[in-house]
Amino acid sequence: MTTHTHHTDIAIIGAGPVGLFTVFEMGMLGYKCALLDSLPEAGGQLQALYPEKPIYDIPGFPSVLAGDIVKHLMAQAEPFLPQYLLGDAVTTITGEPNNFTLTAGENNLNAKVIVIAAGAGVFAPRKPPLPNLAQFENTSVFYAVRNKQQYAGHTVVIAGGGDSAADWAVELATLGATVHVVHRRADFRAAEATVQQMHQLATEGRIIIHTPHQLHALHGEGSQLSQVDIADLYGNITTIPATRLLCFFGLSPALGPIANWNLSTTTKKVVVNPATMETTQTGILAVGDITDYPGKLDLILTGFAESAIAAKTAQGLINPEKKFKLVYTTSSGIKPLSS
Amino acid sequence: MTTHTHHTDIAIIGAGPVGLFTVFEMGMLGYKCALLDSLPEAGGQLQALYPEKPIYDIPGFPSVLAGDIVKHLMAQAEPFLPQYLLGDAVTTITGEPNNFTLTAGENNLNAKVIVIAAGAGVFAPRKPPLPNLAQFENTSVFYAVRNKQQYAGHTVVIAGGGDSAADWAVELATLGATVHVVHRRADFRAAEATVQQMHQLATEGRIIIHTPHQLHALHGEGSQLSQVDIADLYGNITTIPATRLLCFFGLSPALGPIANWNLSTTTKKVVVNPATMETTQTGILAVGDITDYPGKLDLILTGFAESAIAAKTAQGLINPEKKFKLVYTTSSGIKPLSS
Repeated sequence: MTTHTHHTDIAIIGAGPVGLFTVFEMGMLGYKCALLDSLPEAGGQLQALYPEKPIYDIPGFPSVLAGDIVKHLMAQAEPFLPQYLLGDAVTTITGEPNNFTLTAGENNLNAKVIVIAAGAGVFAPRKPPLPNLAQFENTSVFYAVRNKQQYAGHTVVIAGGGDSAADWAVELATLGATVHVVHRRADFRAAEATVQQMHQLATEGRIIIHTPHQLHALHGEGSQLSQVDIADLYGNITTIPATRLLCFFGLSPALGPIANWNLSTTTKKVVVNPATMETTQTGILAVGDITDYPGKLDLILTGFAESAIAAKTAQGLINPEKKFKLVYTTSSGIKPLSS
Repeated sequence: MTTHTHHTDIAIIGAGPVGLFTVFEMGMLGYKCALLDSLPEAGGQLQALYPEKPIYDIPGFPSVLAGDIVKHLMAQAEPFLPQYLLGDAVTTITGEPNNFTLTAGENNLNAKVIVIAAGAGVFAPRKPPLPNLAQFENTSVFYAVRNKQQYAGHTVVIAGGGDSAADWAVELATLGATVHVVHRRADFRAAEATVQQMHQLATEGRIIIHTPHQLHALHGEGSQLSQVDIADLYGNITTIPATRLLCFFGLSPALGPIANWNLSTTTKKVVVNPATMETTQTGILAVGDITDYPGKLDLILTGFAESAIAAKTAQGLINPEKKFKLVYTTSSGIKPLSS
């Protein structure tokens, strides 16, 4: 694995709306930011879960699509040249203020100040409640397809009824895998055209559809899966000789690695001083829904205000000699950063 | 003077951007608002001082004209039917929580909760530093023209060099007043066409322009002005036999009557608990630039977040039995109020 090392002023963990606006607020004070997110795209929940839904409580927008406000915030951040490091969760933080190193997948990021803007936490795949699941994970059981060619020749059980399940059933069957689709309802929530394709492949014997069925048990040797048992509504068991299981049950938020960073936390939240947005670790700030303090409201607009406070605090940490001065953009405009 | 009595849930003092967004946040919880402002239009400073200037730090707007963001916020408030009571400062507050009465000009407003969103305070006209000025105010000395016909037949000194000075010089000269314009610079900042009209009327002897001159002294009997002395740069005095003085030196913010409402204040600011936005008087909340608390930043986006907190607090005051529940507009949309 090749490791890439990057340098920035501010490492923002979480590229949701509040993380994006933090780029703007830091940029106004002359600091450059890198955004890290476990999701493959910027925008957090708004982009990953409901980009087509309207939001009504962003000040100044009587109605705006979640995906559009993400685009606007990215455009607003753009003059300050944010670096996007997406697709991997931050797993470790080492070092000290003005010299932190964050690791996320193949990326190491050196930063002066860290801002946690992780919202509801890391969106982790929902997992089926099977006792020996962990034994097979990352070898035979997966929650996403990274390299589809590796599935050719395998018997693959795909569990789930949404777009990911249907898309990959069609795709993997087409490239030569034997595909079993297991879904607890007869109806699929996926795009109609894909569902039709899937049923067409089923009539050709290239996909076997099991509905309404649920995953029941996994069997195998060491980390190698050899059999998946599924159950119908009456508890009747069907056994499938399968070497791969793909589970597509959606994403569920969890605090994730943040829980290991030695910060004071309440339930799924990082405790901050609301006057500064400082956590209990010097140099690590937090903003947005991940934070907790008296009177905290989990609203995007609240996170926006917190990011302005965090920027002031960051300046105090990076340039303590500099006097903080609020910039009024109507008088002074913005000063884009150069690369 | 006819008095009008109105009833509402929430009286918002100040119809600037934060006051307007407070209507939305209160409306989301089912409360109706009335907005009171000393200015004749909603929008506060944004509308009164720089409607054509771009703002860059409203989250989600890479650039927006100050006047446009006011329009957007009014549209966002509109489903909740705010009542606008404009043009008079709130002078007195009496009563108690759930039964306050506010007086502003001819309007009495009955409200359950008061939210002060007065920004930098009341925008009061800048006054010339003349010791006996107060003696003539509202009888012979004015800072705005309410009824122009009352100036016909008078000798009027107009002091100032901006649009108001030039506009009213032309207007009052045209309807038969003898007009002296006094400005401390030779150049006028007013619209070019109006300045030309003024100079044209000067060549016809209908306006006398004194530049560079400043007001020096006022003379008269009781509240009746009879003479205005002006001075040039060398201290040479010119006396003008005048019965009216109009001063157009712009607006300057002052805490205004808020200073008399028995609230804990720091310099020009009302102290609040940032977890609730409560002032030291039960039932009176404050949001936006008028507030002070540890870490407070005077930014519009900060005021937006404060208004959401104030709405939660208002519900606790008006309906203490009701459990507060954050409304997520992506799930539930908005519920417009009916009149």
